[in-house]
Amino acid sequence: MAVPESRGRLARRELLRAGLALIAAGALPARAAAQARGASSSPLPEFRKLVAANRILANEGVVDAFGHVSVRDPRNAERFWLSRSRSPALVELDDLMEFSLDGAAIDARGRTPYGERMIHAAVYAARPDVHSVVHNHSYGVLPFTITDEPLRPVVHTASVIGAVVPVWDIRTRFGGTDMLVRSIEQGRDFAATLADNTCALIRGHGAVVVGASIERAVLTAIYLQVNAGVLLQALQLGGEPEALSAEEIERSSETQFSPLALDRSWEYFCQRAGVDPG
Amino acid sequence: MAVPESRGRLARRELLRAGLALIAAGALPARAAAQARGASSSPLPEFRKLVAANRILANEGVVDAFGHVSVRDPRNAERFWLSRSRSPALVELDDLMEFSLDGAAIDARGRTPYGERMIHAAVYAARPDVHSVVHNHSYGVLPFTITDEPLRPVVHTASVIGAVVPVWDIRTRFGGTDMLVRSIEQGRDFAATLADNTCALIRGHGAVVVGASIERAVLTAIYLQVNAGVLLQALQLGGEPEALSAEEIERSSETQFSPLALDRSWEYFCQRAGVDPG
Amino acid sequence: MAVPESRGRLARRELLRAGLALIAAGALPARAAAQARGASSSPLPEFRKLVAANRILANEGVVDAFGHVSVRDPRNAERFWLSRSRSPALVELDDLMEFSLDGAAIDARGRTPYGERMIHAAVYAARPDVHSVVHNHSYGVLPFTITDEPLRPVVHTASVIGAVVPVWDIRTRFGGTDMLVRSIEQGRDFAATLADNTCALIRGHGAVVVGASIERAVLTAIYLQVNAGVLLQALQLGGEPEALSAEEIERSSETQFSPLALDRSWEYFCQRAGVDPG
Amino acid sequence: MAVPESRGRLARRELLRAGLALIAAGALPARAAAQARGASSSPLPEFRKLVAANRILANEGVVDAFGHVSVRDPRNAERFWLSRSRSPALVELDDLMEFSLDGAAIDARGRTPYGERMIHAAVYAARPDVHSVVHNHSYGVLPFTITDEPLRPVVHTASVIGAVVPVWDIRTRFGGTDMLVRSIEQGRDFAATLADNTCALIRGHGAVVVGASIERAVLTAIYLQVNAGVLLQALQLGGEPEALSAEEIERSSETQFSPLALDRSWEYFCQRAGVDPG
Repeated sequence: MAVPESRGRLARRELLRAGLALIAAGALPARAAAQARGASSSPLPEFRKLVAANRILANEGVVDAFGHVSVRDPRNAERFWLSRSRSPALVELDDLMEFSLDGAAIDARGRTPYGERMIHAAVYAARPDVHSVVHNHSYGVLPFTITDEPLRPVVHTASVIGAVVPVWDIRTRFGGTDMLVRSIEQGRDFAATLADNTCALIRGHGAVVVGASIERAVLTAIYLQVNAGVLLQALQLGGEPEALSAEEIERSSETQFSPLALDRSWEYFCQRAGVDPG
Repeated sequence: MAVPESRGRLARRELLRAGLALIAAGALPARAAAQARGASSSPLPEFRKLVAANRILANEGVVDAFGHVSVRDPRNAERFWLSRSRSPALVELDDLMEFSLDGAAIDARGRTPYGERMIHAAVYAARPDVHSVVHNHSYGVLPFTITDEPLRPVVHTASVIGAVVPVWDIRTRFGGTDMLVRSIEQGRDFAATLADNTCALIRGHGAVVVGASIERAVLTAIYLQVNAGVLLQALQLGGEPEALSAEEIERSSETQFSPLALDRSWEYFCQRAGVDPG
Repeated sequence: MAVPESRGRLARRELLRAGLALIAAGALPARAAAQARGASSSPLPEFRKLVAANRILANEGVVDAFGHVSVRDPRNAERFWLSRSRSPALVELDDLMEFSLDGAAIDARGRTPYGERMIHAAVYAARPDVHSVVHNHSYGVLPFTITDEPLRPVVHTASVIGAVVPVWDIRTRFGGTDMLVRSIEQGRDFAATLADNTCALIRGHGAVVVGASIERAVLTAIYLQVNAGVLLQALQLGGEPEALSAEEIERSSETQFSPLALDRSWEYFCQRAGVDPG
Repeated sequence: MAVPESRGRLARRELLRAGLALIAAGALPARAAAQARGASSSPLPEFRKLVAANRILANEGVVDAFGHVSVRDPRNAERFWLSRSRSPALVELDDLMEFSLDGAAIDARGRTPYGERMIHAAVYAARPDVHSVVHNHSYGVLPFTITDEPLRPVVHTASVIGAVVPVWDIRTRFGGTDMLVRSIEQGRDFAATLADNTCALIRGHGAVVVGASIERAVLTAIYLQVNAGVLLQALQLGGEPEALSAEEIERSSETQFSPLALDRSWEYFCQRAGVDPG
């Protein structure tokens, strides 16, 4: 639509930011710059990738003040890592917390966890093949959570979302709630609806995207959003949009997740978000 | 839609901004940087928050050249503070003016007040529970002010807008006007339509959002806009979008306004706007 | 829709820009900075405003690579000023050229004028009340140039576009052309359709907005675009959107063009575009 | 729609970027700055233009992580140049690879080529008049690849896309695939559908735009996207949008590709992308 896009691009704020950079520059090099890009002395590259994933999802508008992304501990399949309760755009290495598969924090150190960590816990428990989980409220995906129009892949870059994207409604089994997935029981009920699929929508709330790696979960969440926008526009053009066939979804997914395509897109989204591909 | 998004991102302007920063840097530190982020020697944190609120609403596109946000004086319930007539994106501490509940400026010091301060005055007079008022012309909300489609919460983050969002038409009681709420009578008539609700639309003009605090009013105004966009898209998908139930609206609102959610989102929107969370 | 908004925000490019700024900084101060913001030693503030107008229209997405804005010479009503053939986003003081009301360049100095300067020439000749003319291809306005849906003001900030926005089709009198208004005859035919209105659309091409001053023409062009977007969305909600009444259009226009509203919005749009309000 | 536009504009990231600039500044001058803007010691201006083309298409949202643009070797019509497998936004001179018209890399030097280089190879072989080819997944164009609504020019700036934009479906002749144009046979089948047209869509995948020069192919790809957005909105307004006549398409194309219009828009899009017009 015609709404002017440029937002808050005020010289004053730019001045402040550049000013802060100048002030910081003195003491910047190594540490500050490293922190800013999520690098650290951590032995686990997965942690740097998890910070990058938070920044990327925020930069692409997949998450806003809310939403989160986690990774299963590569050293212990019974544990996963997730930021403390903080907006993804602001997450840093020190915000990462370890959880068991029932959603209990291992070493909170006074940090407050996300109220919906049970989504991650239940999915990791139910899906050994899943190593990363994204939960978001993408504005482009939300319309499909409150209507009967199925969100299915119509472009090959979104083949990775899978042929079926089920919708889970917390009201069905838990009645009137605050709509958050707070208990492990609710998490398990969601996981049952997710079943073996890659994405599932939550009525009036958002989406959950899973993957065999952080990169896969993040890219799938991005293209789920892209596909939703394309499908919405195609429906406005009238007629039944041509969807991908089962064979195209399977073969295209393999290609989209090949090292060639995965590395290219991960480098791209990292650069856009200003984070180190690691 | 397909309109290229990148706007006026011209090297020339970037060069000017960075250039200004460099020039400023010399004399920058403390004061300039502090001012730029709305900090001051003021004893009232509410004032810093009010400046931040102006910048946030502008950065999120909730307000443009027009629109305003006010706060009830925490020391005197019969007074409220509002910027002089200036675009929210540019508001600074020195722009804040004090008003009585009939819209009279206490100490104008030659500053020109907003023509529509009566909206704030009348609402504070009618609603002792309200401590902050936002008036905006959000482009995403405006379509709902000129059609019969009710703007109701369909996503949990927007539960805070409340179950009912009435529409007020100045023409109904005041006939042909310049459409601004200029008199205290008009303000009271609007307040009567707002009644006990959190949001009310003004036909062909905009919206008013109230809250028990600056943070609540600002976040509600942001998610009113988000919800409008999601609802518009859902309606394009056909069928009747599933709305939140009364119980979901009540419980989700409590959660969205819990310290956990409120602090997270306030920190996020402050960072996006480049202002100090205070 | 769901298309990720962040565009080309690559660290590399930011690095280049900031780098350029640093390199420039040495020789920056006075002149460079002044030029960048369109200031100069020129005796006519209208010229600085015209440069600012070009930058603002580009920054708001009202013009892209094409489109232009002119001002009638305040010293000689038979002359007007318009940039040489260059994208509005890049226009500087030295690009401004003087033209007579038949579209002839007074002192080209080897500079190439816009092919469509005849629009400006013919409008200034036909409308003594007009002191500034904007021609644009706003993506949000274009849909209304190729359909029967009349573009009428539905929000008070757009009351300034006037009750009637006629559509001119060059094909009607000139048959198959390259669709540009190249001759003074074509310009006069357009001006006849514009008549006493403030805005007129050109089928499959764009819009022309006139004003008693640069600020008025620019703000009207911006809110014509905003109104087009709001009207399009309102129509998608179904039913007949409530339009402004003739009396509301007249009274609201006066208010929107009052010094209070005009100064506020001009300061705002200048800041967004990074130009000096002058 | 109402989705807040400002994305990831976090002070932290700005700080990192400006910080990187500061660190780089020391060793910046000549080489770094030159590389960043795609300049080099190369004897072929076409190579600098090809890098600029990559950056421009990324900046305008015509390509994202995927998509590519190539140029026929001006010294040898049997060869063309295309980046190694990398996102267009990140392409630099050293990424350019030379290919023969059967898609074989001449001197890969260990670099991995794009899987879909066959599109370029087949088109150059079939169309001696083509000197540049763009392949993209523009989100605004994609809806027209999966519906029956023909994408035709409705605004004069898009007249260059031509009267007919055919849609090619790889499934028709090659059945269930990963949807990528991998073999020279598939490339030739696509080229047969493209025939003498300037643009062709690929079902559920994207578009291919050809031109007699890099500038023409890039500008056509940009305005194909703009036209798609305008046409989509016009269709939402109801009725049959007025299209350009065959004569208007022919004459307007000549004008849009005249040096006057081509130079103006190329300078504009280069500036927006922060690259040197060369």
